[in-house]
Amino acid sequence: MKIYISDQISKQIRTNLPKDNVTYLNSSSITKADLKEIQVAWGYDHHVQSLLDTPHHQLKWIQSFSAGIDYFPKQQLTDQKITLTNTSGVHSEAIANTVLLYALYFMRDMNLALNMHRQKQWDGSRHYEELTLLSNKKWLIFGTGHIGQEIAREAKALGGYTTGVNHSGHAATNFDDTVADNAYSNIIQDADIIINILPLTPETTHMFDHQFFNQLEHLYLFINVGRGPSVDTSALMQALDDGHVKHAALDVFEEEPLTSDSPLWDYPQVLITPHNSAVSSEMLPGVQDVFIHNLQTFLKDGHPNTNIVDLTRGY
Amino acid sequence: MKIYISDQISKQIRTNLPKDNVTYLNSSSITKADLKEIQVAWGYDHHVQSLLDTPHHQLKWIQSFSAGIDYFPKQQLTDQKITLTNTSGVHSEAIANTVLLYALYFMRDMNLALNMHRQKQWDGSRHYEELTLLSNKKWLIFGTGHIGQEIAREAKALGGYTTGVNHSGHAATNFDDTVADNAYSNIIQDADIIINILPLTPETTHMFDHQFFNQLEHLYLFINVGRGPSVDTSALMQALDDGHVKHAALDVFEEEPLTSDSPLWDYPQVLITPHNSAVSSEMLPGVQDVFIHNLQTFLKDGHPNTNIVDLTRGY
Repeated sequence: MKIYISDQISKQIRTNLPKDNVTYLNSSSITKADLKEIQVAWGYDHHVQSLLDTPHHQLKWIQSFSAGIDYFPKQQLTDQKITLTNTSGVHSEAIANTVLLYALYFMRDMNLALNMHRQKQWDGSRHYEELTLLSNKKWLIFGTGHIGQEIAREAKALGGYTTGVNHSGHAATNFDDTVADNAYSNIIQDADIIINILPLTPETTHMFDHQFFNQLEHLYLFINVGRGPSVDTSALMQALDDGHVKHAALDVFEEEPLTSDSPLWDYPQVLITPHNSAVSSEMLPGVQDVFIHNLQTFLKDGHPNTNIVDLTRGY
Repeated sequence: MKIYISDQISKQIRTNLPKDNVTYLNSSSITKADLKEIQVAWGYDHHVQSLLDTPHHQLKWIQSFSAGIDYFPKQQLTDQKITLTNTSGVHSEAIANTVLLYALYFMRDMNLALNMHRQKQWDGSRHYEELTLLSNKKWLIFGTGHIGQEIAREAKALGGYTTGVNHSGHAATNFDDTVADNAYSNIIQDADIIINILPLTPETTHMFDHQFFNQLEHLYLFINVGRGPSVDTSALMQALDDGHVKHAALDVFEEEPLTSDSPLWDYPQVLITPHNSAVSSEMLPGVQDVFIHNLQTFLKDGHPNTNIVDLTRGY
């Protein structure tokens, strides 16, 4: 059986894969003839797309490298009855740790310390009002899946109160409270920190728009570690200008890479990270584990059995 | 009864003090005659020192603003049988939160993100090896009092393993393990993060010296949130140059303020904060609470009853 490993998959996790009756191909070794024989793809690149576009191909299953799968051609996968699995769960701790960093960066006024460092000029004045703590902060987290739950766990351990937003408002592990996604407008004013970790779907596209931000009075921190297009960037910048939002931390953007002429770079109260909140040296073994587990099941039963994406919902 | 409030004490916490039979003086209102009548001082400045140097003064108790009291004339206080109380316990969370920030700053490679921001130039390459997580990190914390315990609590909640160092090696809340201060040399090589939060005493002065740092192989992060003179700065810089220590985060320094010509500013892998790790808008009510509680006891019983410093030990 032929398996294609895309360029997304780094070398260090291409080891220890099952060997019996399996041939692994990569972007250097793949031939046109292979396109009609490959049954499994790991990750996504233009070769995977060529596979999907090849008449009478044999592709049955794609294991994604990422948790979010919005960049896959979902309609084509649905039409061709291809199973898509993701890596949901593998990135939770990295994203939650990064969220803590974002919050603490502003709470401990690191802009002051780093400006001081650049100018080699000690500033010993005591900025009491600018320095605050994690305890007693109210977190409103859009998304109560693996990642949202880990963010909530860490926030609670550090003294926070966590409210989650999901479709039905059903209870979720580590959340003090949850509300449905049509019922949060009367509580967003109370939040200190609002986080988006929702998958990108038609419903979540530009969910955080002018109307949303205008409801806020003086939010301490808005964080996007979900998908860029969920936020209307110009609305967020307007909210920063108008004081509806005091700080923002963004790992994802409507257009990536963020171009050099983006006005976002001009905001010192916006932390920008290059879509790496989920990345860590520890994540690669986790990504590999999901693939190997699903591959073993696929070789035995003909289909993977964990992290299966519902292509209709989009996550 | 006359009470002197030093310039260390900010206006917002000079309110709500007991009024009956008490006169409060400050640096503008104090007169030479007052020096022979003041019984209580809150904080330390040159007027407090003048008080101590006045023959036949009536000073019985000083409530410090800080947790560390190394800057007080301890011998003079001992000779004059003056009680010194500190604010130990009030700053624990701010320091612990700041310690988490220091760790996450390097673990999430914020130097990369902030350089990117300054240059308005996205760097989307995936630096897996530079990005890591808080879980499974080994913390070695010198000092197992209030602050050490809160650092340990937060580190453990985020998946860390915490070892504390104290005089006898006695067990301490939130620590997985403790060792005596003459028995840590065989475990420091295993630590990922070493933190000093010990008070400054003759024993802790230059405790972290060439000999200490040379025992390390490749420490991920050294943090000093205790007192500056506990670290031999030139030895630390040597350790950074030699690779014994990869990153450092320093809130306190041998000389404060750190002068503009200090070579420490030239290390991008050293985070420098201006002795404000303990500061927060939330701390002032805590500082005030300790003083008011002790003052009420003093007015009733003639002595304060919490946070009393052992002048022989120095904390």
